[in-house]
Order: sequence, then C-alpha cells, then structure tokens
Amino acid sequence: MAVIRLGLIGLGVVGGGVAGLLRDRGASLASRLGADIVITRAAVKDLKKVRDTGVDPAIVTDDPFKVVNAPDVDIVVEVMGGETPALELLLTAAKNRKSIVTANKRLLAIHGEKIYRAVEDAGVELGFEAAVAGAVPVIGAIKTGFAANRIDGVYGIINGTSNYILSRMTLEGKSYGDALKEAQALGYAEADPTFDVEGVDTAHKIAVLASLGFETPIDFNSIYTEGITRLTPEDIGMAKEFGYRIKLLAVAKRVDGALDVRVHPAMIPASHPMANVNGALNAVEIKGNFAGTNLLIGPGAGAGPTASAVMADVLDIAGRMAHGVAGKRAPMVTPAAKRVKMEVRSVDTARSQYYMRFCVPDRPGVMAALSGALGENGISIASMIQRGRKEGGQPVSVVMMTHTAMEADLRKALAKIEGQKIVSKPTMVIRIEGEEG
Amino acid sequence: MAVIRLGLIGLGVVGGGVAGLLRDRGASLASRLGADIVITRAAVKDLKKVRDTGVDPAIVTDDPFKVVNAPDVDIVVEVMGGETPALELLLTAAKNRKSIVTANKRLLAIHGEKIYRAVEDAGVELGFEAAVAGAVPVIGAIKTGFAANRIDGVYGIINGTSNYILSRMTLEGKSYGDALKEAQALGYAEADPTFDVEGVDTAHKIAVLASLGFETPIDFNSIYTEGITRLTPEDIGMAKEFGYRIKLLAVAKRVDGALDVRVHPAMIPASHPMANVNGALNAVEIKGNFAGTNLLIGPGAGAGPTASAVMADVLDIAGRMAHGVAGKRAPMVTPAAKRVKMEVRSVDTARSQYYMRFCVPDRPGVMAALSGALGENGISIASMIQRGRKEGGQPVSVVMMTHTAMEADLRKALAKIEGQKIVSKPTMVIRIEGEEG
Repeated sequence: MAVIRLGLIGLGVVGGGVAGLLRDRGASLASRLGADIVITRAAVKDLKKVRDTGVDPAIVTDDPFKVVNAPDVDIVVEVMGGETPALELLLTAAKNRKSIVTANKRLLAIHGEKIYRAVEDAGVELGFEAAVAGAVPVIGAIKTGFAANRIDGVYGIINGTSNYILSRMTLEGKSYGDALKEAQALGYAEADPTFDVEGVDTAHKIAVLASLGFETPIDFNSIYTEGITRLTPEDIGMAKEFGYRIKLLAVAKRVDGALDVRVHPAMIPASHPMANVNGALNAVEIKGNFAGTNLLIGPGAGAGPTASAVMADVLDIAGRMAHGVAGKRAPMVTPAAKRVKMEVRSVDTARSQYYMRFCVPDRPGVMAALSGALGENGISIASMIQRGRKEGGQPVSVVMMTHTAMEADLRKALAKIEGQKIVSKPTMVIRIEGEEG
Repeated sequence: MAVIRLGLIGLGVVGGGVAGLLRDRGASLASRLGADIVITRAAVKDLKKVRDTGVDPAIVTDDPFKVVNAPDVDIVVEVMGGETPALELLLTAAKNRKSIVTANKRLLAIHGEKIYRAVEDAGVELGFEAAVAGAVPVIGAIKTGFAANRIDGVYGIINGTSNYILSRMTLEGKSYGDALKEAQALGYAEADPTFDVEGVDTAHKIAVLASLGFETPIDFNSIYTEGITRLTPEDIGMAKEFGYRIKLLAVAKRVDGALDVRVHPAMIPASHPMANVNGALNAVEIKGNFAGTNLLIGPGAGAGPTASAVMADVLDIAGRMAHGVAGKRAPMVTPAAKRVKMEVRSVDTARSQYYMRFCVPDRPGVMAALSGALGENGISIASMIQRGRKEGGQPVSVVMMTHTAMEADLRKALAKIEGQKIVSKPTMVIRIEGEEG
C-alpha cells in the first residue's frame, strides 16, 4: 500500500491528538484512502519532557528544521504555533516541495500572504481548517460549500476562552475576574490570558476568514480589536433585561466595495441562535449572496476536535496525492498573486446601534446634558433606564440604547460628555449586532 | 477557455435558481475555475409554460432523455424530483458517462444503492449536497470536514414546512390547522402537505445522511416515521412549561453495532441551540468521535440556497474535470459495492425519556391505575401535572414525564391503559431528546 508520510511539528495537545487519531482511526482511513498515513518525523521543544503520545521516540527531534528538511516527509503538520520559527519553517517546507497543514492562525493572520505565495510558487498544498474554530468545518464551507457565492459577511464567536468567561458571567452572574479564575482552573484560559480576553486571537481568526472569504489580503493592523476585560455584571444584566446576550464577536462584512472587519463585545438578540452558543463552543455565521445566512457551531479547541480538522486537511491533500494532482492549483481559489487588496475601513465609519452605560451624579440637569450632547451629534435614543438612585448625590448608572448611528458621531458625543465632566467614569459602550437580517 | 456543459432536468424553482446563479456569478466562477460553465440543454415538463429563467428556449426540450443522451452535456443536473422517470434518467446518464448532480432525496433514499453503483461502474461523479438542508453544507461536512471521524450520530430538523408550522404553533399559540394554512398561503407548504407533515420527506433525508455517515445501505422502510399532525397547542404549551420545544426531529445513531434511525416529533431542551431554529430554517447536528458535536444551521430550501448547493457540487466536479481526475473514485468514500449493510433496529428497542398526555375522567382511582400500569412495565415517572379540573367528572389532561425507558415497555404499558379503558382518548406520546450529550 502507498504511504503518506507526515512530519509533525509540535507534540502537545494538538500534535498528541493527531497521533491519537491515527492510532484509533488509521486502519479505517487507510482502507478508504488506499494509502497508509504514517508519522515519520516529529519535533518538540524539549526532548526531556515525557509524552504519552505513542510516537516512537526514535523519530522525535528538538530541531524542527530537521522535519521540514527530511526527505521522508510528504506533508508537514505545523501545530507549534507562534510566528518564530514557524514562518521560516513553513517557507522552508514549501521550498522543499512539501505540502503543509497548519493550525497557526496567528502566523496566517500576520504572514499569510508570504505563505500563500510560497506554496503557490512551489506547487504544493496548504490546509488550515484547524486554524479557526477547531473541528467546525468553516474553512471548507467557505472554500467548497459556498464556492458559488459571493461571500458578503462572516460573523464569529471564535475564542472559546472568552466565550466561556462570558457564559459564566451571563448564566451565573459571576464577575469577570471570578469567571476568568474558573476558566484558568479548568484549563480553558492560560495563565496569561491576554491574547484571548483582549480579542487578539479572535482578530487573528477573523483575519484568516476574511482573507479567504473576500479573496483579499487583509492588513492585520487595520482590524479594530476590543476585548472583554472591562465588561461588568451590570452590563451583562442590562443586556439580559433588554433581551440581548453579550458575546465577543468578530465581524467581517462588505460595505460599499470596502470591508468592515472588527472584534469587540456585542449584544446579540437573545432569540438569535448565536446568543445560545455557550461555554467553550465556537460559532461562525457565513452570509452568501445565494446561500443566505448559515451558522456553524461546534467545539473550537481541544485535542480531538483540532486533530479532526488537521486530519481533514491531511486526508484532502493525501487524496489529491493519490490522484497525482496535489499541488496543482485547487480550483475555486483565486491565486494569492492575483488577489486585489480591499480597504478595511476605519471603525469610525461603522454603523450600528449602541448600548451606553453612563456613570453620572444623581442631580438635576445631568440627563439634559447627556441627551444634548448626543442629539447635537445626531445620535437618537431608542430607550433609556436609570438605575440605582442613591442617597446624597452618589453616582448612578444611566443606560441608553441608541438607534443606528455612525461610530464617529458617537465618539464625538462621548468626547463632549467626558470633556464636560458630566460623567464620573469612562462610559461603557457596547455595539448591538444581528438586528437586521 | 475550456467549457463545462450542464444539462438541466427541471427548470422550476431550483432549475431557475441555477440559471440565475450562473447569470449572476458565471464570470467570476469561470475566472476562478479556468473554465466556463454553460447550460447547453434543459428539460421541462410543459413547453407551453412561460418561464423567466433566461435559458434560451432553443435548448429546452420536454423530453428529459434528450438531455441525458445529449453528446454536448458533461454534467446532468437533476432537479425534477420524484422516482419516475428520474431513476431511469440518472442510470442512463451514468451509462453515458456523464457526471450527475441531483437534489432528489426521495430517489436517493429509495434507490440510492442502484445509483451509487451505477456511477461507480461508469467511473463518473455524483453530487447530492442539495438533497438535504439546501445551502447548508452537511454532505460536504460528513464527506470532507469530518472525514477522519467515525460518525456516531446525525440529528436533523430537515423539513422546513414542518418546522415553520411548529414555530408558529410555539411562538404564536396557533393550532396545527391554522399554522398549516398560513404556511400554505406563504408557499412554505404544498396544497397536499402529506410528505412534509407526515415526516416522509424528513425520513428520505435522514436515510441519505445515515447512509453517507455510517457508510451503509439503509432500508428506507425500516425507518420509523411519525409526523406532526396530531400535535396540539396543549402539547406545545406543556413542552414550554417543562423547559422544552417540540421539533420534528430526524435521529440516526449507532447503537451497539446496529443503527437507530427514526423520525418523530421530539422535545428538545429550550437551551439547546436546535430549540431556537425557527421558521423554515434547517439544522443538522453531526457527532464525530473526534470532532465532537457540531451543528449546522441554515436555509433548507428556496431557489438561491438550493442553487448554491447544486453549484457547489458542479464546481467540485468541474474542478476535478479540469485536473483530468473526475470519476476516479473520490478518496475517503467507501465504494458502494464494498459497504456492509447495518441493521436498523426496531423503534421498540429505542430508549429515551417520554412525555405522555393522558386524557382521563377526573375521578378517584384513575391516577393509581395509570401509575400501576406504568410501574408494572418498569416505566418510572419523573414528574406529573394534572390540568384543567372540570366540573362533573369531565375528562382532564394528566401529563407525565418519564425517566429513560425502553419504547417496547412504554407501548406495553399504554396498551394495558387503553385496554382497561382508563383513558377516554388515545394517549399522546412525545420522545425527549438532547438531554445526554
């Protein structure tokens, strides 16, 4: 039987998952594929660390360049993450005419164009289903399932850590800090959770999805990114009261020939299926001009789901290898060299409804000052609640929901309100999404 | 530029949708594919019917055999539906070495094995993404996205008509009859809605999914099928009260080396994302042994979504034609000739929790008789509500939720209860799904 030889870079949770999947499913996959899939090389950071992956220690090295340069590797599976040395490793692998499967969203978000061009130049294949939303086949859906469509929008809950924290805050009334601690204790959040809770990981993933869906290079730095660390139980509670749930949402959509790409907490109507995507689950909504709105939900991380996605790519590439057409340009994907760069608009031009929570002294004239500043800038208020009337002129919360407004106008109004010292703390602003279509 | 030539059988909603998609997206798809996709033949039932599909009348015939026998057709797109003459048409197309894209779930459910073998024998391709859940790429997900997994279960809300009716009943308290009339007025239900509301269409689709996912022929007649026509506003309301929503659910899962495949109304926990799939939307949940539980939601019907799915298959096949490997066995699909038939177990052996609504006279001893008959057969009651105490011993509703029980035991208990004339009407039984996992 023919053999497809994998070189694994990384033998942690995901790499170990791939080895485990091959142990469990290898015989069945081989009989369907007509070829055995075998791990011939594996690289780890620290050879001394004991691993229970079943991979023969004789093929394990601590030099990943030995994997991408090995003659007995057909497909390099990069699951180490990070930019350095991953970028150089993948470029070397392509130069060596090895196909590549990677779960590295950060690398693709920041250096994607270099990698896309390198694999095209070398005539090899690249798979990255595992880079976004774990097992959920969102990359395949965009590339194949919705291939006939113009993709108009992609919306995602694509960071399990943040979604876990927000779910605990929503369902159990926990504070951000307590929910984070729980997530850390359960292994859903890292000791330094910055990338996850500040929206950076989400921005990496939406950059990958937007680039694929809109067939354009995306300048990662142009993505407006805001995390969940400032959200309070009061905001979560007010959202519920108004019929919403707060999610860390990635948005990428076409607007007048340009793109709107951003990451921030958003209020989603409670009846929207995405509002009920809780815990560490991921969800990606894809809008096609013929397919309409489709929503894919599933486990976004973990050994099994990520290994499932990695192996979907391996099997796809192995299938083309079996037919002798691997590396010929996959139809239905515009070559990187031919793609036209689309502008990612400033978040200032984005339009949505807004939730605002003002912290103001409880005294006459405050409401007039607030509504005056908003009205002057064309911000129209849809509803308003004042909460927590206190004795002795203590600060109270005033919550407003606006009609659709432009972000720049809202910022102007808020600057005036803060400049006039009407508020005693910075105002919390949360965008509302999912109302139209 | 190379040309891929389509022969359309059917120019109704779906066929017209395909023509419209090609008008709108043809140039963009051609530039990505490196080949033009052109409709060269089309067959309709009635040539006199005026159509606004933009298809040149000169290529339209009322003899579909002219399409499958035409030398200038590469891919036959069958969107006429039904068994006759669709089966003979597709077998002829395969014999003529034409690849096939079909949306015909009924044909695949009943005659799938014949068709799968015919396309394999002829060395052509077969695509049927459009046969289940419209634009939602469920076939692609099973074949490609979860290719590395053993598929353990597939659950679906896959009939838009029934889901629309149940949603109106749930959200607006309508009766079944009124909701059906509304669905008919809006074009969501046909004048004769039998296939949709009796679960037959859902059974066709789960047969297709189960056969693909479990890689086995499925005897269509072995699928237990129950529709939504007997559901009352009282059942819908009681479901809500217990924290459930009622959906017409298709279930296909592995049980001890055999299969459990059935279609019936089911109560789903209100917090489950499937419970909030409303209107004409479809949803399919796929469980893989590595991918975990994934849920795909989207429009299950309509010109645009179905055309999107048809064209996904056309592009996939056209891509392989461009590489000269069309019709070579697609890797990762076990050939029909090699598949082993798995037993579909009788519904009697299925285990679940149950909702039962008894209609009983309001008099002493009734409750003892009910619980006696249940207890004797090992059915354990989890909760109970009696409603609508009436004057003068009028019949009242007694609703019970059971712990997990075997269907055969439940049937025995109900037979005893009905035999003893404890109830004044047949008892309503609804299975509860989605509690475990």
